Amino acid sequence: MNFTLPYDQYLAVHRYKYLALYHALRAAILGGTLPGGTRLPSTRKLAELYQISRGSASQVYDMLLADGYIRTETGRGTYVANDSFEPVEQERVEADQEIEGAVAATSAFAGTEGSKDAVTNAVTGEYADVGAACNRTGIPLSGWGQRLMERNVLIYEQEEGNFVSFRSRGMLMEYFPYEEWRSALKYAGGKSGGRMEGYCPPQGEESLRLAIAAHLRVTRGIRAEAEQIVLFNGSMQGIVLLTQLLLEPGSPAVAEDPGFHGIRRAVEISGGKLLLGKVDGSGLVPQDWAARLLFVTPSRQFPTGAVLPLDRRRRLLEWARRQEALIVEDDYDSEFRWGGRPIEPLKALDREERVVYLGSFSNSMFSSLRLGYAVLPPLLIGPVTAAKALYEPLPGGQLEQRALARFMQTGGYSRHLRRMTRLYGERARLLRSLLSERLGQLFELLPGDAGLHIYARWRRSRAEFAAFRAAALRRGTDFRDAALYQAAPGVPAACFSFAHLDSAQLENGVNRLLLAWEDVQNRM
Amino acid sequence: MNFTLPYDQYLAVHRYKYLALYHALRAAILGGTLPGGTRLPSTRKLAELYQISRGSASQVYDMLLADGYIRTETGRGTYVANDSFEPVEQERVEADQEIEGAVAATSAFAGTEGSKDAVTNAVTGEYADVGAACNRTGIPLSGWGQRLMERNVLIYEQEEGNFVSFRSRGMLMEYFPYEEWRSALKYAGGKSGGRMEGYCPPQGEESLRLAIAAHLRVTRGIRAEAEQIVLFNGSMQGIVLLTQLLLEPGSPAVAEDPGFHGIRRAVEISGGKLLLGKVDGSGLVPQDWAARLLFVTPSRQFPTGAVLPLDRRRRLLEWARRQEALIVEDDYDSEFRWGGRPIEPLKALDREERVVYLGSFSNSMFSSLRLGYAVLPPLLIGPVTAAKALYEPLPGGQLEQRALARFMQTGGYSRHLRRMTRLYGERARLLRSLLSERLGQLFELLPGDAGLHIYARWRRSRAEFAAFRAAALRRGTDFRDAALYQAAPGVPAACFSFAHLDSAQLENGVNRLLLAWEDVQNRM
Repeated sequence: MNFTLPYDQYLAVHRYKYLALYHALRAAILGGTLPGGTRLPSTRKLAELYQISRGSASQVYDMLLADGYIRTETGRGTYVANDSFEPVEQERVEADQEIEGAVAATSAFAGTEGSKDAVTNAVTGEYADVGAACNRTGIPLSGWGQRLMERNVLIYEQEEGNFVSFRSRGMLMEYFPYEEWRSALKYAGGKSGGRMEGYCPPQGEESLRLAIAAHLRVTRGIRAEAEQIVLFNGSMQGIVLLTQLLLEPGSPAVAEDPGFHGIRRAVEISGGKLLLGKVDGSGLVPQDWAARLLFVTPSRQFPTGAVLPLDRRRRLLEWARRQEALIVEDDYDSEFRWGGRPIEPLKALDREERVVYLGSFSNSMFSSLRLGYAVLPPLLIGPVTAAKALYEPLPGGQLEQRALARFMQTGGYSRHLRRMTRLYGERARLLRSLLSERLGQLFELLPGDAGLHIYARWRRSRAEFAAFRAAALRRGTDFRDAALYQAAPGVPAACFSFAHLDSAQLENGVNRLLLAWEDVQNRM
Repeated sequence: MNFTLPYDQYLAVHRYKYLALYHALRAAILGGTLPGGTRLPSTRKLAELYQISRGSASQVYDMLLADGYIRTETGRGTYVANDSFEPVEQERVEADQEIEGAVAATSAFAGTEGSKDAVTNAVTGEYADVGAACNRTGIPLSGWGQRLMERNVLIYEQEEGNFVSFRSRGMLMEYFPYEEWRSALKYAGGKSGGRMEGYCPPQGEESLRLAIAAHLRVTRGIRAEAEQIVLFNGSMQGIVLLTQLLLEPGSPAVAEDPGFHGIRRAVEISGGKLLLGKVDGSGLVPQDWAARLLFVTPSRQFPTGAVLPLDRRRRLLEWARRQEALIVEDDYDSEFRWGGRPIEPLKALDREERVVYLGSFSNSMFSSLRLGYAVLPPLLIGPVTAAKALYEPLPGGQLEQRALARFMQTGGYSRHLRRMTRLYGERARLLRSLLSERLGQLFELLPGDAGLHIYARWRRSRAEFAAFRAAALRRGTDFRDAALYQAAPGVPAACFSFAHLDSAQLENGVNRLLLAWEDVQNRM
């Protein structure tokens, strides 16, 4: 097929490429340049043609699909719909602008999603073809840089007004113990607890590593020494450094599917080969992967929330022993558990020192505190410390590290966790009952008694899911499309984060979702 | 030659491998296992045999040389000295232990050196062979990880007592405006200026990027927008990310020699091929390098202090234009200038957007504030932001970023710079006169009217330099052996940092150096 869209003229108007492309395609369909029945290029082809990511290309088609301009035929392709379209009306244009704002706002937020750093890949926008541009203008990127830019996605716009988002927006700060935290900060910045000059090892402040070790012994049964702990500026830094240290170009690493997209991205940008580990209702299904590195979320599978049973944990450890492999246990949000009993972390069962345990304070404290850590097997202490120290010979964020150590030592952290666990538990139960009562015909909620989001499987068609998402945006709410976490296309699903919403907002948001579904039905 | 040293038994006693090796060799010489005239292995060979770095191997020989146990013959090799040795006496052993402590302390400090992050490569110690160990025990490191570990060096011990070190130890904190800074911190952590939840782009806090842009316009004549500025956790993070983005394995990059070892390390660990740029009394000598990436310190060449003349700056830009290359201008400590006039930065002369300007607050504020930044050509904004965001989707150290923005906005930073420039100027002049008056026969001081260290070329033999260093440690003082900054062996030289020493300490330290030289003379 040959494509001549008035793309450039839309590009001049719209801030994001995918929006320019959406409008250009819509204009071509409405204007008859692309008549009904025309076969459209695959998302891969579209992405190539317009130098956008495949995610953006999919989004363009999703939007056109939701609007009814195109249709997909499973296994056959995407076609311009055969309906005749009416001329674009003013109302329509306004609605589009609304969507534009909302989509940009919502797909762009690089906050934390269900306690994960959510660097969305839904919208690519500005950066997407900078790699290509660099090559054109004589600044060549390395293979690493090219892989990075191919998988790059970072855009942010503040959302406006009374939008109720079920996408992660950080924590419920009204209950945060500001005074205690400020006094810890003051201590850390003061002469008694502080040290503005003087040495801090690249692993991070020792006081905090000691406090973490003590916390892990009590709450997780992990016996770690401060020497085994390396602090990171968020756990993603640890994930990326581990892939750099351990993966040769082409060497395989296993990641859960669905799973945290950041891990897949880190593996691929390091040049490693991604093997997808199947996830069922009990979490990762152990297999005899031909790999020596595995990422897993046993305490609460991300994003489904499944808790990995003890026998599977043992089988993973046994696999690691046989393969001489390393397991990275990402315990991203199990601080908040209001029901059930936690199962021993892999790290606590790890007799052969094959497990790296990753933890984070971004959820348990607040999201602008970028503090993660790894508990390392002895042989990795040197390499991981060296990797961290290459970038930061002296670590950043020392003040906040010292403050957090103080906050933990004085019991402030435990008190805060207990209080928030109770609160989050109430919110989780409320959202769960609202969703199942009012949207039970749309979503199947997966069970879970910990964590800060609810994972919900869509019960209907993929097209209805896309239409529902678009309608929700128009109604001023949204949720995370779990497609972001699916490497291979799976059942459509949504993640509903609730840590930042109070009960009135939860109720309001669910009502908007209900209205959105009515909109979809009225239209179909 | 065949080596059978009682190495393992010394390894059990000494904390660091190089010390174990030093003692093992000394015992073998004293015990006659290695008789006078025996040719010893090259440092390369020794490093291989004992799995230590070449830097450590050199250090072992330096110590034996300083003690008189071995001798080197230029171009021929290293031999056991022909003198007959007396049995080890108690006094001797104690002196060794003293050296051991002092060497470990002084070569190990990973503070800032002449305003550079000083990850020493003088001593390797514990990490040196972890890479090998990982491979032995079934945790394979990637090529990147192996390159990292081959060039790894990180050890730290606090020095004791009344040691006076001319190695960098951070800043002179007694004049730091604590109250103003604390009030900025309080503002940043408070509800008016602070934001514990909410979005911070991966480039870092906008308020700080705006403040930096304003500062650069006034103090450097650089017209940068906040959008072109990316904040790092210290400038080393920026250097490493740039090498990762721009260097393919085997692709060449130019670094100054002598120059900051961190840059050479970053180039080599990224897999790039290091080309050494010649440095003379006017700084880097422009050449027609076959490369597309150059690191240079025009404002004040590191470590020599030379100021790059305008015509050389123009020639570098012209080279970059011809080669379609990027120049990374590392302006690491030119905030402090007490004489002369600064020349326009390359970035201010950069019409073709080929210059990345790197700056840092680690020296101008205090060393535990890990804050560096890059001013980027437009085409690199996307890739560099993406690279930073891969590791830190939300940046760390946001609180300190906001506090620094406040400190700059309220004029606190400018006042602090003015005050410290005057103070450092006085210290610099004092140290310069002390060194030239008392040690003028040993060192030739290179001129300089900015920065926080003095570079001094040794006037005598290499062996005398080694003996002098060892004697200085015994006298409770030390300085940075500039060999760390020399990729190819050059004239022995020392860096004397003074930012952390008051005038009494400067005087005391220089006197100790004088005594050390007397010790050397009495012995020879």
